Amino acid sequence: MEKSNGKLSLGIDIGGTNTAIGLVAADGTVVRKESIETARHGDAAAYAKEVATVIRRVAGEDLKNLVGIGIGAPNANYYTGKIEYAPNLSFKGIVPLVDLLKAELPEVAKIQITNDANAAAMGEMVYGKAQGMKDFVMITLGTGLGSGIIVNGKLVYGHDGFAGEVGHAMLIRGGRRCGCGVRGHVEAYCSATGIKRTAFELLAETNATDSALANKSFNELTAKDICIAANQGDEIAKQVFERTGEWLAQALADTIHFTSPEAIFIFGGPVAAGDLLFNPLMAHLDEYLLPVFRGKVKVMASGLKPGDAAIVGAAALVM
Amino acid sequence: MEKSNGKLSLGIDIGGTNTAIGLVAADGTVVRKESIETARHGDAAAYAKEVATVIRRVAGEDLKNLVGIGIGAPNANYYTGKIEYAPNLSFKGIVPLVDLLKAELPEVAKIQITNDANAAAMGEMVYGKAQGMKDFVMITLGTGLGSGIIVNGKLVYGHDGFAGEVGHAMLIRGGRRCGCGVRGHVEAYCSATGIKRTAFELLAETNATDSALANKSFNELTAKDICIAANQGDEIAKQVFERTGEWLAQALADTIHFTSPEAIFIFGGPVAAGDLLFNPLMAHLDEYLLPVFRGKVKVMASGLKPGDAAIVGAAALVM
Repeated sequence: MEKSNGKLSLGIDIGGTNTAIGLVAADGTVVRKESIETARHGDAAAYAKEVATVIRRVAGEDLKNLVGIGIGAPNANYYTGKIEYAPNLSFKGIVPLVDLLKAELPEVAKIQITNDANAAAMGEMVYGKAQGMKDFVMITLGTGLGSGIIVNGKLVYGHDGFAGEVGHAMLIRGGRRCGCGVRGHVEAYCSATGIKRTAFELLAETNATDSALANKSFNELTAKDICIAANQGDEIAKQVFERTGEWLAQALADTIHFTSPEAIFIFGGPVAAGDLLFNPLMAHLDEYLLPVFRGKVKVMASGLKPGDAAIVGAAALVM
Repeated sequence: MEKSNGKLSLGIDIGGTNTAIGLVAADGTVVRKESIETARHGDAAAYAKEVATVIRRVAGEDLKNLVGIGIGAPNANYYTGKIEYAPNLSFKGIVPLVDLLKAELPEVAKIQITNDANAAAMGEMVYGKAQGMKDFVMITLGTGLGSGIIVNGKLVYGHDGFAGEVGHAMLIRGGRRCGCGVRGHVEAYCSATGIKRTAFELLAETNATDSALANKSFNELTAKDICIAANQGDEIAKQVFERTGEWLAQALADTIHFTSPEAIFIFGGPVAAGDLLFNPLMAHLDEYLLPVFRGKVKVMASGLKPGDAAIVGAAALVM
């Protein structure tokens, strides 16, 4: 059993398929974790009951000594404690998850929720490379493009709890259709999905039948495939990351103009492309910036471990 | 003489031509003001001495009871108290204005400086329509496009004091050359200068020799002329504001996605166009927004009086 030094917290990462629940130590390591299926729960109350049961098992005797429970979930609102109309979750409408869990776990000091990218930003600040920083931005590249903005040591939630949607800033007027329906948003270009779309755009432009990317369907090809192909020297795959880096440079420049962060951290599968992504990104960043910002902002891969980052980020919310 | 109720402050507005110095009452009215020429001072120390002399005259016996002195100036840095490389001011390089004034006025409780758009945001919060709001954005339309971002009741300065440059977010990739040298920034389209450029773009497109705008040179025509012509029904002038409103909608949508403000206030000469600007702006705003933000954010003209806004905003900095 862990020593209950008052610095243990519990993180919950809610995804469309699974919910991961982990006990997190003061140094950010996951002491113990379990996972349940989110997907089979159409009913939020039954889901909350199962989550509470697993929390009791994972936390054990440390439950009442936890700093708190932090939850990261799509479309979660920090202010209301609710998940609101999450398109990829099985329970629909507005789910008051924090209140449901508080009723199940009255002995827990605090329970808080936010969206997954905000949770990742908190994780970076408490356990990752942003320790000691007061102004930074976290960008998460996945199916979508999420972001968490930290100003003066605090997450920016905004008036209604929904701030930090860098993925829905405009990149190219009238461009690709974004998941939200609007044309040209950053997410449609720089997310893992956007990277795949870029690959097919390039195949269409070049008719490169000899590219490794030319042998998989739109529904089969992943950003990971493109990453592997690029690292093996595939020209089309390398160009995909060239374009992605240049687009991301514009998006990060906009971000810098808004909140002037000390650093921007990038998290997610496409970060594995390494220099293939970061070199064009850094080569183009200054082109879009006011002189006063040039060469000043650190842009780097997140310091969170991919496997546990979501749990650890959620746990950081209450630290 | 005013009653020294501890709520008097002094605001200084530094412009390229003149410096205005005013004593501001608790209700935001300017009790007394004077103006000196900024332009004839190449030497910052001599300038600070003259400013201090005028401050003593304007504040009178209230000097030692002031809450403080707030200064709004281009390229001013809140953290360092310095004006840094302001292209339109006669004193060059880095000017430690706050330290210079503190040396001249040791009896003043506090002296703070920020850029003019940040000062305007503080003015709106303390004396204008943003009273009681914790999350809002101020946009100032002038030669450039300035902005002050308030998050959780505080100005966002960012890591180095230069946050809040909405004018230098990207509007149209590869578009018009901005004053900063980068192509396509918001400022090149939506500032008063941008509005004039749009007029000439439209004249070039349409060859509208019968427009009232066709009789003035590029250096003669002002946003005010275009505003007057639009109000008199000139078709080209009306189209100028249609385009400006649509572009501004995109810029404000980006702003909303970043910090999710309760309201956005617009200040400056072009606001006089009224519905000609605000109707297309509001008609297009939702087109660029995530559904969760649509129809929620108030966009309106600033509540600050044009004449004294800069002094009042600067004074608000210390309130």
